[in-house]
Amino acid sequence: MVYLDHAATTPLDGRVLQAMTPYLTEIYGNASSQHSYGRRAANAVTVARDKIAGIMGVSPSELYFTSGGTEAGNTALKGVCAALRGRGRHVVLSALEHPALISAANDMREYGYEITLVNPAENGIVSAESVAGAIRPDTVFVGVMAANNEVGTIQPIKDIYAACRERKVFLYCDCVQTAGVLPFGLFPADGIGFSAHKFYGPKGFGGLYVRGNCRFERLISGGEQERGLRGGTTYVAGAVGCARALEIAEREAQSNNENIRRLRDLFVKRVLAEIEGTRVNGDLQNRLPSNANISFDGCDGEQILFALDLAGIAVSTGSACSSGAVTPSRVLTSMGLDEGRVKSAVRFTFGRGNTLQEVDYVTVKIKEAVERIRAQKY
Amino acid sequence: MVYLDHAATTPLDGRVLQAMTPYLTEIYGNASSQHSYGRRAANAVTVARDKIAGIMGVSPSELYFTSGGTEAGNTALKGVCAALRGRGRHVVLSALEHPALISAANDMREYGYEITLVNPAENGIVSAESVAGAIRPDTVFVGVMAANNEVGTIQPIKDIYAACRERKVFLYCDCVQTAGVLPFGLFPADGIGFSAHKFYGPKGFGGLYVRGNCRFERLISGGEQERGLRGGTTYVAGAVGCARALEIAEREAQSNNENIRRLRDLFVKRVLAEIEGTRVNGDLQNRLPSNANISFDGCDGEQILFALDLAGIAVSTGSACSSGAVTPSRVLTSMGLDEGRVKSAVRFTFGRGNTLQEVDYVTVKIKEAVERIRAQKY
Repeated sequence: MVYLDHAATTPLDGRVLQAMTPYLTEIYGNASSQHSYGRRAANAVTVARDKIAGIMGVSPSELYFTSGGTEAGNTALKGVCAALRGRGRHVVLSALEHPALISAANDMREYGYEITLVNPAENGIVSAESVAGAIRPDTVFVGVMAANNEVGTIQPIKDIYAACRERKVFLYCDCVQTAGVLPFGLFPADGIGFSAHKFYGPKGFGGLYVRGNCRFERLISGGEQERGLRGGTTYVAGAVGCARALEIAEREAQSNNENIRRLRDLFVKRVLAEIEGTRVNGDLQNRLPSNANISFDGCDGEQILFALDLAGIAVSTGSACSSGAVTPSRVLTSMGLDEGRVKSAVRFTFGRGNTLQEVDYVTVKIKEAVERIRAQKY
Repeated sequence: MVYLDHAATTPLDGRVLQAMTPYLTEIYGNASSQHSYGRRAANAVTVARDKIAGIMGVSPSELYFTSGGTEAGNTALKGVCAALRGRGRHVVLSALEHPALISAANDMREYGYEITLVNPAENGIVSAESVAGAIRPDTVFVGVMAANNEVGTIQPIKDIYAACRERKVFLYCDCVQTAGVLPFGLFPADGIGFSAHKFYGPKGFGGLYVRGNCRFERLISGGEQERGLRGGTTYVAGAVGCARALEIAEREAQSNNENIRRLRDLFVKRVLAEIEGTRVNGDLQNRLPSNANISFDGCDGEQILFALDLAGIAVSTGSACSSGAVTPSRVLTSMGLDEGRVKSAVRFTFGRGNTLQEVDYVTVKIKEAVERIRAQKY
């Protein structure tokens, strides 16, 4: 079995599970309880929050734990819009954004919100100029992700943030794909979201940073957890695991990134050289080390996915989160790629566990699959 | 160490952790992915959903997984109100409801919603008549919990639901305290919420049932998960653990309830007999087997909590979820109890692991604590 879908989710690091285990067994108190069981749990949550905030370079008081990146994005978009509803009802999103933000924004239309989607260039990069050009006096929220989940393109967030600051508009940066891979410092913003299971941490846990002087209304009302801004009993083991996973990922990022980039580059080189009619989608330089998004002329991406699945290889077309729908990738379409290229795109995302042998095996299997599919078609 | 705070949270059952472990290790796929890693995860989620729905006696298609009971309650209240906003903006809640619903409703006031809180009788029970009397033509949501978290009183949900049906108003029943303890069939409603960590399942996971013909707007927008009504990568191990925990809890409910009730009854009997100036709060019959809520004349509940904590005994005052705040219990106040009785109330909630010896030890320690506190006061 070869797993090449690390952008969808990653396996839980054994060291992370080890850190979580006491909180799945003997230390079971509710972190809101006042007795020693509760305080032990609360201390673990505090340590986790401090650790994550330290890695992000933010104050622990600006970090809110959530059930994942989708809740983080929803809380940011809906919460900031609600807090600023007296000021305006216009939202600017890059067309590359994850369904978490796109769907949340679409749901706001019913409440009188207008959404402007900013298309990337053909290389999958959104320019600061195009974002700035979309901002209006009534814009209250801008969302541009750090790196896209489908093509891995890294966005010029520093320039985009400068444009937003100049215009005094809140910028949310979805760092789900970069957390634990690239430093948070590369992606300054007023709001930042991440999800633990993307960096070898647990599923069901994530976080939202919101700059201290920015107001937002809570999405999940309840008790006094998360400074009263996110109710619900804290998933303590999740917090501990998230912190441990981020710590490991950050510490090992350089060597992991080097290895992963080498495998990815070799893979791309071989596929382009050995299989005719193949094109890489998205910028080659400003790109996550893990991501290869390749179109195979005359094929459907799904056909390749299923053929590889039979060979024990896990890849993706579009993003896993919307795989229920068979609509062509919104992201690739927004880059202006033609329909054939969009339909035939396959995403390969490498991770820590992949090997050179796997690159060999996968390349051979792709070649077989593509040749078979093309032979059936013509 | 004696843990008597099972209403706040319960330890994870070892059998549940065992069921979860494969999904925390080798079966790590994203349940939305189309390849075999994803399908294995998705199958586990389907099996979990079927199992839970079967126990609840509902259709799996009516069951939405959430991050817990608080998200479930928020989704129900905010989601139903949003879907029915053309019909009216009035919400009826029992004054006993958990902060999840009370805070969510209070947050809606800003959007023109009016909230009517229905007080219970002095025994902590809300009558169907008083709920019916609060329903207006513009009422769109009624929330009455199955059993209260502080005093354990079981509410006449069947009668309340009949009153709601007659008036064609949505009834939400927070079953967080009863799930795995009492059959879901006792608490019929249009919406039902539960949280896995209250029945020896994992933290960070819960569910919301919404009757198929009732509309609600999603709180967390995103991908196609949960029939498009709750975005975010599914916490697969959470789903598996929740289903296993509920299965075990339901199967063993009768014997567990008997043991727990016997301990609780003995404890109450001894405290009332051996410590003067003690009174049980809430109805004695219609009550969770686990709950004892006792007021100690002349004491502050917190003083007792801290004294017992020093003796290694975990109890609660008010609900753990709002323990950051030192305001007197809203629940006990709504029952019309006087301030002294409210301030001196302590909640003891028994669980599977408690023993007769612990009842002995705790009774002795409470007696010591109460005598010391009273001696200091007078």
